[in-house]
Amino acid sequence: MDFFHPMKPILLRMEKDMTPEENLNRQHITLPPPPKPVANYVTSVRTGNLLFVSGHGPAPAEGVKGSGKVGKDLNVEEGYSSARQTGLSILATVRAALGSLDRVERVVKVLGMVNAVPEFADHPKVVNGCSDLFVQVFGEEKGRGTRSAVGMGSLPGNIPTEIEAIFQVKE
Amino acid sequence: MDFFHPMKPILLRMEKDMTPEENLNRQHITLPPPPKPVANYVTSVRTGNLLFVSGHGPAPAEGVKGSGKVGKDLNVEEGYSSARQTGLSILATVRAALGSLDRVERVVKVLGMVNAVPEFADHPKVVNGCSDLFVQVFGEEKGRGTRSAVGMGSLPGNIPTEIEAIFQVKE
Amino acid sequence: MDFFHPMKPILLRMEKDMTPEENLNRQHITLPPPPKPVANYVTSVRTGNLLFVSGHGPAPAEGVKGSGKVGKDLNVEEGYSSARQTGLSILATVRAALGSLDRVERVVKVLGMVNAVPEFADHPKVVNGCSDLFVQVFGEEKGRGTRSAVGMGSLPGNIPTEIEAIFQVKE
Repeated sequence: MDFFHPMKPILLRMEKDMTPEENLNRQHITLPPPPKPVANYVTSVRTGNLLFVSGHGPAPAEGVKGSGKVGKDLNVEEGYSSARQTGLSILATVRAALGSLDRVERVVKVLGMVNAVPEFADHPKVVNGCSDLFVQVFGEEKGRGTRSAVGMGSLPGNIPTEIEAIFQVKE
Repeated sequence: MDFFHPMKPILLRMEKDMTPEENLNRQHITLPPPPKPVANYVTSVRTGNLLFVSGHGPAPAEGVKGSGKVGKDLNVEEGYSSARQTGLSILATVRAALGSLDRVERVVKVLGMVNAVPEFADHPKVVNGCSDLFVQVFGEEKGRGTRSAVGMGSLPGNIPTEIEAIFQVKE
Repeated sequence: MDFFHPMKPILLRMEKDMTPEENLNRQHITLPPPPKPVANYVTSVRTGNLLFVSGHGPAPAEGVKGSGKVGKDLNVEEGYSSARQTGLSILATVRAALGSLDRVERVVKVLGMVNAVPEFADHPKVVNGCSDLFVQVFGEEKGRGTRSAVGMGSLPGNIPTEIEAIFQVKE
């Protein structure tokens, strides 16, 4: 009777109805403190119903490499973890800007920049660390935005990933 | 009498009045199938009257190199062809998103990213492969958007060009 | 009595009330001629109240290196000067597009791309050359936008910095 799950559709619908903040709670995802700008800029700007978010680096976490080039100092899995930490840092900024992640209408755009060696080719797998997090929090429909995943020659402080994003805000 | 072309202004006006889809037909340009996302994202998102388009790679075509670094594995002309194929892939996504290219009001922004060796310097000539296509399809006024043409350290799957874009959609 | 400046608050308020064009005058900042596109694109596009600005290179200036890689051919200070010249070039384009810098509501986004060697890590200090200029002209609040400062593998003509930006325009 493996395929008989009378409760599953109901559960799924409930999950779908959950708000981003409820998703965070349910999945025990804790956001880091929102990062302070390291130079002469701000971490987010809202114009109309778009929230532009600055390039973020990975929030520090035990067991996650905070510097190095993917393809040399980090493998794909370690790059994925760095991208996930970068996504957490972005979410912290978004919550600080809007008061709550529940005010996000959807992810519009993600520019995932990977500090990689010239022969690296698996950028999408790395940047999924951020994209998978966004889908976990905002759901399949609102959490998937447009995306570019590309390889940089170098990044500030030799961080493995820097990601900038645009979100649509609820009216 | 080389410089006497009484019909030319009329012909030009007619071309100018053609829609993007008519331009495609007239110039025998066939769009490839719209690409599927290779990871956890979507290929376009519309918000307000802006259509954000994900980073695209070149649509496969006979005689066009689908991987390699410009300045080593591809020369400028080969890079141009890759950028044109990338533009075709973007147009396929735009048509799939909007139903018809005729719903495009104008090209707003193109970020042309060239997978190049560190000493490469001719990025604008490469990215013109995409920009020239957009002008061919949308015309001089609506087809020319803002642009950055830059050199990446690496790109997914070692593709020679990745291009993302923003279009304005007719109300 | 070093800390008693009864006039200072008044002076500061006056500076704050100054328009961007007045700030330029007061600080004797002269904008270069707006650059012409080097390929098939335009230098700015306005859509709604957003002004998208193409990737710009540094306006030529005596004593400022116009080409080379930061971390090898240019040090951080020289990179900063290149970024400032790039910002001046952007402002020239913005003024040409809007008629006056006074029509800028705020800086929304800056993508600061540094042509750097793979081991370079001080991109924020370089891109501050542009950000500091924007704050000088538009003030602390309106001049600071979101920002990414990243390292490219190569740039057109081997320029040290290429910067693109988005501005919000007054209604």
